[in-house]
Amino acid sequence: MPSDLDNLRVVLVAARNPLNIGAAARAMSNFGVRRLRVVNPYEVAFQEARSAVGAAGLLAKAEQFENVAEAVADCRLVVGTTVAGRRELQHRLLRLEEGGRAIKRQLKTGPVALLFGSERVGLSNQEMSHCHWMMRIPTREEHGSMNLGQAVAVCLYELVRGRKTAPIKTAPAQKEKTPAKSGDVERLTRVLLEVLRVSGYVKPRTVAAEEKLRRLVRRMKLNANDAEVWLGMLRQIAWKLGANEKSDEKV
Amino acid sequence: MPSDLDNLRVVLVAARNPLNIGAAARAMSNFGVRRLRVVNPYEVAFQEARSAVGAAGLLAKAEQFENVAEAVADCRLVVGTTVAGRRELQHRLLRLEEGGRAIKRQLKTGPVALLFGSERVGLSNQEMSHCHWMMRIPTREEHGSMNLGQAVAVCLYELVRGRKTAPIKTAPAQKEKTPAKSGDVERLTRVLLEVLRVSGYVKPRTVAAEEKLRRLVRRMKLNANDAEVWLGMLRQIAWKLGANEKSDEKV
Repeated sequence: MPSDLDNLRVVLVAARNPLNIGAAARAMSNFGVRRLRVVNPYEVAFQEARSAVGAAGLLAKAEQFENVAEAVADCRLVVGTTVAGRRELQHRLLRLEEGGRAIKRQLKTGPVALLFGSERVGLSNQEMSHCHWMMRIPTREEHGSMNLGQAVAVCLYELVRGRKTAPIKTAPAQKEKTPAKSGDVERLTRVLLEVLRVSGYVKPRTVAAEEKLRRLVRRMKLNANDAEVWLGMLRQIAWKLGANEKSDEKV
Repeated sequence: MPSDLDNLRVVLVAARNPLNIGAAARAMSNFGVRRLRVVNPYEVAFQEARSAVGAAGLLAKAEQFENVAEAVADCRLVVGTTVAGRRELQHRLLRLEEGGRAIKRQLKTGPVALLFGSERVGLSNQEMSHCHWMMRIPTREEHGSMNLGQAVAVCLYELVRGRKTAPIKTAPAQKEKTPAKSGDVERLTRVLLEVLRVSGYVKPRTVAAEEKLRRLVRRMKLNANDAEVWLGMLRQIAWKLGANEKSDEKV
């Protein structure tokens, strides 16, 4: 993992539900963020969460603090999170997309704290007062309140978004991306035309039908692999229909 | 809320945990997405989730389907989600950031299905074969597996991210540019499969062949017009071959 995410501290303030603490830890592990701090958690919840499966290591190493001031003491930037509908913020409020950019810049130079308030009321004015600015997840006005674990996941996603990761390996290799040769596409078109003639779908020697069909096949934008497969399928159908076998030898 | 999000259908396939179904619904409500579809859910979980607090209205209106084909039948783009570490995907795989852009474009013109697999195993190959492509949430290789509710939240956030308040006006889509409905593409796939069976190209009841064919047809990226033409051609061929006429009536 790139080291600048090691500068991020996710701070859960007064979290009440062990499932949420566990979910926050899981999202952190998913996105490669390791430092979890909890401020004044509901003790039972925290102990339960610690014993849950999943991101156990991360939770075991979580640091516990009595107040926000101590939890963010070593950080050079402190950002609080909120959702829509929160009135009378005294802070500068950035949308997550903008705020994320600012945080990413700061992570390159030193520790940043990202604060999440309790499930029911979010961050109090006192807790927010430790923040440099607030960041808003763009939820709807009518239903702004997010689940804590989901809010953490969304914020962390924004921070890893667009990062280079290990290249994605997929089965379809280069050949999948290579467009089919025109000659192969035309061969395919001829066999299809012959099949359609034998089936009675097009009348013999209708030029308009042939051109229409040619455009239709071109719109498939076949890659080299698929063109081969289609040609094989159509030849088999043509054979079964007893079509003229030479129909595809003209190109 | 801008109306193009109304074109999005969140499809939970074989979800097992009522808390996760509820969390998915809550994230949808947060981000202004209303259409929830569930495929073959663990029935108890679904009923429990329905009675949970929070996004009750959305859950009450959730549509239930027996299989993926029916759940995506009216959609013109079907996208599956996955995480890191899934090997041997047969599909094109886009990162969430890129995939999100493609989905947003499509939402302006018609219904899009976004599929999430079950908590334990994700989407099966059979379920994935209904997808045009797959989208990957950029989690770490070492701990890729995300909580379902968090995965939904992150994907939906990507889709509302950076939204301008004023809806973007686009020229009315011509039929040529409107992607075919999944139901029509599936119908076409079935007829093609039947034709290939009668022709001896594929053996009866080979699931792998069926999935391969389904992906092949999805890669054609048919527009609504062309899908109609192809269906007509294939039906005629099937008729000529004396194939079972009911082969395309299953969807």
